[in-house]
Amino acid sequence: MKPIAPRVLAFDVFGTVVDWHGSIRREIDAMELGVDGAAFALAWRAGYQPAMRRVMSGKLGWTLLDELHRIMLDEVLNTFGIAHLSAAEKAHLNKVWHRLDPWPDAVPGLTRLKQRYIICSLSNGNIGLLTHMAKHGGLPWDCVLSAEVFKAYKPDPSVYLGVARVFDVAPAAVMLVAAHQDDLAAARACGLQSAYVERPAEFGVDRLKDVSPDPANTLHACNFIDLADQLGA
Amino acid sequence: MKPIAPRVLAFDVFGTVVDWHGSIRREIDAMELGVDGAAFALAWRAGYQPAMRRVMSGKLGWTLLDELHRIMLDEVLNTFGIAHLSAAEKAHLNKVWHRLDPWPDAVPGLTRLKQRYIICSLSNGNIGLLTHMAKHGGLPWDCVLSAEVFKAYKPDPSVYLGVARVFDVAPAAVMLVAAHQDDLAAARACGLQSAYVERPAEFGVDRLKDVSPDPANTLHACNFIDLADQLGA
Repeated sequence: MKPIAPRVLAFDVFGTVVDWHGSIRREIDAMELGVDGAAFALAWRAGYQPAMRRVMSGKLGWTLLDELHRIMLDEVLNTFGIAHLSAAEKAHLNKVWHRLDPWPDAVPGLTRLKQRYIICSLSNGNIGLLTHMAKHGGLPWDCVLSAEVFKAYKPDPSVYLGVARVFDVAPAAVMLVAAHQDDLAAARACGLQSAYVERPAEFGVDRLKDVSPDPANTLHACNFIDLADQLGA
Repeated sequence: MKPIAPRVLAFDVFGTVVDWHGSIRREIDAMELGVDGAAFALAWRAGYQPAMRRVMSGKLGWTLLDELHRIMLDEVLNTFGIAHLSAAEKAHLNKVWHRLDPWPDAVPGLTRLKQRYIICSLSNGNIGLLTHMAKHGGLPWDCVLSAEVFKAYKPDPSVYLGVARVFDVAPAAVMLVAAHQDDLAAARACGLQSAYVERPAEFGVDRLKDVSPDPANTLHACNFIDLADQLGA
């Protein structure tokens, strides 16, 4: 059975739309602190899923990602022996997540998709972070949706179902686009369509990740241009 | 004392960015129902403030504007003797609020302002309504902020202060832009800057409204081009 055409494309952001690893690596390397930017980026990001779980389990009250990033940053700065940075430098570095660069196909792909669909972010990043990132990279969102709107972090079902509610459509009229199979599986469990996008270098070109198709997804695309082709945009 | 430069411009939408009266009048007139489109638009909009108050007083639970518009529409259709419209026609007509046309200066002005400031909506309209409207009219928002994000309607202080919180800035770094002095006064009471924009024909060219300056506002502009000029954008 041919799936119904989606009306809303909701995009995971970190890793799917923007290259967090390369952007953080470049910024750390440019600071010439004597630390390995690639390793620093991986260590910082490694705190992400545990932080989400602490909030969603109730161990930590509702906390914006900017603040979670800062808690993780302080730990990583200690680990790498560079906790001596000034308060202003730490505050600026924490906002590197607002300055992540899009993958090269992201803006041209989104620009095409926007002609035919509603395109929105659906990220655990807070609204301010996502808005600054969109200005930085020229991401042409119709609407910035965030965990902050739903006061819950993915993979909580209320985030995926929240998109359908916001746009007053059936869950099947929403397609989540992500480079992460677990995010897509959680969306499918809520009745959304799912599109996997290959981002083999998400964790760096030295540790390419498995981008094998999962037949459970509605679509599998090698990038956003391919996605636009497949979606007739 | 010269006010500090704002970093975020938050725009009231109905009447300030888009011409609700003219858009609804045109759509009703085109339906050739034998009713006066201008009078119909005024009657529909007249239910707006009372509906906001019913929600904020707690008489009505949290309700999205799309649904409030529909409750008001059913009353107005009765008043005008055209309650015989089909269910599909009524549902379509209710979404005329998603199809409101921008004032002629709105898109060029916003496009200039976006180069220098974060520009967002700050409307009692729900996120879906504002997103469809932005696509319809080409409004280049960096971010769609809505009462739906804050679960409160203007003039509740949490809506104005919510913008400052979302972007992690002081209230004085946010400027509300509106064609309504009461909205601007409520924003100033929260510490925001305020810019009044003249929309003399908001209620139709036959009943021009008073657009006199209030010296309490930070700025007074005749339209969004003038606003961009005054804000150096």
